[in-house]
Amino acid sequence: MNMQTYRIGIDLGGTNIKVGIVNKKQEIIASASRKTRKERPYQEVLDDMAETVKDALKKIEVSITACNGIGIGSPGTIDHENGIVIYSNNISWEQIPLAEEIEKRLSLPVKISNDANCAALGEALAGSGKDCKNLVLLTLGTGVGGGVIIDGKLFQGRIGGMELGHTTLIAGGEPCTCGRQGCVEAYCSATGLIREANKAADCFPDSLLEKMREEMGEMNGKIPFEARKIGDKQAIRIINQYINWLGEAITNYVNIFRPQMVLLSGGICGQGKSLTDPLKKYVETYAFAGKRISIPKIEIAKLGNDAGIIGAANLV
Amino acid sequence: MNMQTYRIGIDLGGTNIKVGIVNKKQEIIASASRKTRKERPYQEVLDDMAETVKDALKKIEVSITACNGIGIGSPGTIDHENGIVIYSNNISWEQIPLAEEIEKRLSLPVKISNDANCAALGEALAGSGKDCKNLVLLTLGTGVGGGVIIDGKLFQGRIGGMELGHTTLIAGGEPCTCGRQGCVEAYCSATGLIREANKAADCFPDSLLEKMREEMGEMNGKIPFEARKIGDKQAIRIINQYINWLGEAITNYVNIFRPQMVLLSGGICGQGKSLTDPLKKYVETYAFAGKRISIPKIEIAKLGNDAGIIGAANLV
Repeated sequence: MNMQTYRIGIDLGGTNIKVGIVNKKQEIIASASRKTRKERPYQEVLDDMAETVKDALKKIEVSITACNGIGIGSPGTIDHENGIVIYSNNISWEQIPLAEEIEKRLSLPVKISNDANCAALGEALAGSGKDCKNLVLLTLGTGVGGGVIIDGKLFQGRIGGMELGHTTLIAGGEPCTCGRQGCVEAYCSATGLIREANKAADCFPDSLLEKMREEMGEMNGKIPFEARKIGDKQAIRIINQYINWLGEAITNYVNIFRPQMVLLSGGICGQGKSLTDPLKKYVETYAFAGKRISIPKIEIAKLGNDAGIIGAANLV
Repeated sequence: MNMQTYRIGIDLGGTNIKVGIVNKKQEIIASASRKTRKERPYQEVLDDMAETVKDALKKIEVSITACNGIGIGSPGTIDHENGIVIYSNNISWEQIPLAEEIEKRLSLPVKISNDANCAALGEALAGSGKDCKNLVLLTLGTGVGGGVIIDGKLFQGRIGGMELGHTTLIAGGEPCTCGRQGCVEAYCSATGLIREANKAADCFPDSLLEKMREEMGEMNGKIPFEARKIGDKQAIRIINQYINWLGEAITNYVNIFRPQMVLLSGGICGQGKSLTDPLKKYVETYAFAGKRISIPKIEIAKLGNDAGIIGAANLV
């Protein structure tokens, strides 16, 4: 097979369809995006995905025939072998033959995978994990997603695997979107942090948490970190608790996969070292066999949103 | 390389050294065992491992030169690439060059892996998972071990991976041998079940649990199952709770690996379908994406102790 110059990566999200044209150096040389508007019939979303690809190609006057193929990162449970989105509560899709439908529209081979998988692959090939053959990437956003690279390759499990966010942290605890109680997602997502911060603000009306919530109109994931910097007791408690929960979750993945590196992405990661330093300490203390074996680096993933597009392009 | 007729498998345990000579049909055609007596210097244990191999070969009058190599399943954290037992609290070993030392003694190539890994490999090749390319095996004994087969191959992670028992079930819960609190091992091991049964017997002196404990001298992992059959309320509660915990743990591994099959081994598995049937129901209800994707079979591993020996032999 003649390796074409460009590959197309699509990051399908609950809010936006993002497309990037990726060259051999793993650079995004053109991009385009449209709103997902997930509430409409899925065929229309697919039409817009194809149009967004054309938008991006037009910007650099590249013909679609100069491209090798299309990779798509989608939220949810993916049958990567057959190119089907089995279930995504995020975009309310079930059994959508995504690869086949996009192939029809653009006449290029299409591969699909879970969005967190694509982010992990992108970081491993072009980002923070460039020299690292074994890594775990966690996306900390509305939910918690996970992607794992083993021996330089994306680990996809069998059909629909790799739901790292849907493993227990506190069985019987907070309700999770997946129908269980106490999943990592229910505690380590931005949603989980906001829930706890709201509880604290409700109970402690004199706290800075409550004052900042009132100013902003509602709680968000940054407020507890900001309030902690100023020394608010409740914020300190909430963030310590969050870091312990995330430390427990990361320790689990370390005990299973023994990666060289754990990468964090998503909104909360704007906190940088004030997040990763205590996590590192936590994992060093609690990982099985402790310091007898090498403890992985814990870092903020540097490609941010581009990782998903670059990773998707590399599914081809 | 000329494939010899026999391979040697060693199952190194806290109590016994078990050796089997395995033929091409994955049958153990001769076996021998000695006590580990783990409290003595490790060199003596290694000497006895070599002698036990010779004992087994003698029984069928096979020369060691007719063997292809030796595989060893050891408890603990293993560096399988370099043949080193990094840390095993079970046999109190640290940084033991096991492969090299046995090679010296028997002049055959030696490969080592974690004991639960070997059991998973044995079941995949010759036992319950014979036609199954993706499986998770859990050993439910003093602790909880795990082995994973992906695409027909043993998944070893990087150095020392695969500590499935040391992932959280209830963060901050019962103390675990690994130094954390609330690991799967602390709840789903026979040790965990016995702890809970003891608590119940202490609190409810009229319960059958307490009567059977008194008769037997101490609690064991069978008493709660037996007392449940007779309708003891406390035993019913304890076993339901145990099944829920184990169901949660299995659901975690299913969400990560999406195996076709989950195999259970260890003492508690004598309970058969009264254990696996409710677990199946639990996982069907709570696995991510539910019945939209195929739920794995949950079965008792059929090779029992032989799985570890056969799996070890197949490391070679």
